[in-house]
Amino acid sequence: MIKIVIIGSGNVATHLIKTFNRSNKVKVIQSFNRKGLSVAGIPATDNYEALETADLYLIAVSDDAISEVSAKLPFKGRLVAHTSGSVALEELSPENRRGVFYPLQSFSRDKDVDFSKIPLCIEAENDRDREILEYVARSISQRVHPVNSEQRRSLHLAAVFVNNFVNHLYAIGDDICRKNDLPFDLLKPLIAETAKKIEHMPPVEAQTGPARRNDQNTLQKHLNQLNLHPTYKKIYELLTKSIQEQQYDSI
Amino acid sequence: MIKIVIIGSGNVATHLIKTFNRSNKVKVIQSFNRKGLSVAGIPATDNYEALETADLYLIAVSDDAISEVSAKLPFKGRLVAHTSGSVALEELSPENRRGVFYPLQSFSRDKDVDFSKIPLCIEAENDRDREILEYVARSISQRVHPVNSEQRRSLHLAAVFVNNFVNHLYAIGDDICRKNDLPFDLLKPLIAETAKKIEHMPPVEAQTGPARRNDQNTLQKHLNQLNLHPTYKKIYELLTKSIQEQQYDSI
Ligand SMILES: NC(=O)c1ccc[n+]([C@@H]2O[C@H](COP(=O)([O-])OP(=O)(O)OC[C@H]3O[C@@H](n4cnc5c(N)ncnc54)[C@H](OP(=O)(O)O)[C@@H]3O)[C@@H](O)[C@H]2O)c1
Ligand SMILES: NC(=O)c1ccc[n+]([C@@H]2O[C@H](COP(=O)([O-])OP(=O)(O)OC[C@H]3O[C@@H](n4cnc5c(N)ncnc54)[C@H](OP(=O)(O)O)[C@@H]3O)[C@@H](O)[C@H]2O)c1
Repeated sequence: MIKIVIIGSGNVATHLIKTFNRSNKVKVIQSFNRKGLSVAGIPATDNYEALETADLYLIAVSDDAISEVSAKLPFKGRLVAHTSGSVALEELSPENRRGVFYPLQSFSRDKDVDFSKIPLCIEAENDRDREILEYVARSISQRVHPVNSEQRRSLHLAAVFVNNFVNHLYAIGDDICRKNDLPFDLLKPLIAETAKKIEHMPPVEAQTGPARRNDQNTLQKHLNQLNLHPTYKKIYELLTKSIQEQQYDSI
Repeated sequence: MIKIVIIGSGNVATHLIKTFNRSNKVKVIQSFNRKGLSVAGIPATDNYEALETADLYLIAVSDDAISEVSAKLPFKGRLVAHTSGSVALEELSPENRRGVFYPLQSFSRDKDVDFSKIPLCIEAENDRDREILEYVARSISQRVHPVNSEQRRSLHLAAVFVNNFVNHLYAIGDDICRKNDLPFDLLKPLIAETAKKIEHMPPVEAQTGPARRNDQNTLQKHLNQLNLHPTYKKIYELLTKSIQEQQYDSI
């Protein structure tokens, strides 16, 4: 049974602890956080010196605290991994064996998570440690992907486009509705269908709309409608241009 | 029983004919298209002079053919509606009573459609015609919304943001994955979760990510990663700026 200590008590730490608790291949033996609060019944500490001996230390704290926390660990040569998509493996202290255990999903505090479908992207400095991380990952998910640093950084960047930026376009849709006394609910079936379509079709093939058809008449009408909102207008122009730059002949 | 003639044999016309066929409140009595092809067993014609007398003529042809087709109808004073989100009601010939019957969804030719959840936005020049369109709409959908021209134009614009532009961001995610030898599949659970989240939470509240946190460190790293792709870099900068301009204090 692989023993894990989880550092942090935020979103990711809490979901991981709850999920590992249900696995019989790994065991979370301790939780560290600054308030020493127990998460999901796991013994907790707020004292680095009181950290137990474990096979893996998972640092699930804010990106900018990862380096500092890893430097405070009072031991050497053990396997320590962070859970961030954007932080370099090298930001972990070289005193320990370093790794990454990045769940490619967006977590909400109050919403239960089914880890079995979440891609876990793992990275390590040697095969042996990669095998440990892979074993731990497979204990909770069917989708485990060893990646290198460059690939993980790219995934995190892609995630910003398909999650943060997509959500912002939903917010613009919501804003346009509000300003015209329309319920945002009207757009929800379209949003759901748009997301569903790419499950079985590459997004470039699924592309439709005035930009794709180069329907100048509609494009011009839409730009006029956005005259009062210069930022939305720029987004409309830029995304239209980008759609038109795509290589459709390669389909 | 309301009698309908459907003009056009494309995506929308075909889905509408199939759906009305299942209703017992309305009946599609004839289909017009330039090849005179029968759709779903409905008698067809390619001759405007041979159009039957009906309570409603639905023009489901390409946006730029709506005006021309409506001008060719060889009768007066009947109810004629188009199915477009972006074409003005006034583009229909004034010889007939004019209306709009706009389904707010993106249709794929080969995929069956459940109209009962699709918002149908209807518009007419008087109450009586609006009632007819509403009756026809309710015969296939639970979500019928009378809108005015301005609102319909706004909905169509909002739909471009949440459908066409969102799909393009998926395509950029796909492109970033390909360029780094990663399967786009890795992003699919995140895409699904992002779309699901806004079903129960306003998108402005669901916003996360480096732009929202103003995490300059990550923002700068991402921009550097995009140096080889100026258009994606501009999109990253502009959407980051737009996220930061949003009024979060109003939450
Ligand atoms: N949220 C997601 O959707 C998601 C997805 C994939 C990966 N990740 C990654 O997972 C990691 C954790 O993210 P999260 O969303 O769980 O963050 P979070 O909910 O904001 O929680 C952050 C945690 O970090 C702790 N912390 C911050 N500074 C600290 C310090 N100097 N010393 C010790 N602990 C400190 C906080 O402790 P206190 O409670 O004591 O302040 C808190 O427990 C990050 O690297 C993030 O990039 C997040
Ligand atoms: N597709 C969607 O997701 C969607 C969603 C909501 C609303 N709409 C609206 O629904 C309408 C139809 O769209 P669609 O997607 O069904 O289009 P489509 O699949 O491209 O079909 C266009 C139809 O228009 C006919 N047509 C074109 N020019 C014509 C002309 N001069 N005279 C007679 N028929 C002509 C075509 O006939 P031929 O086969 O003979 O060329 C074809 O049947 C448009 O106003 C569109 O804005 C579409």
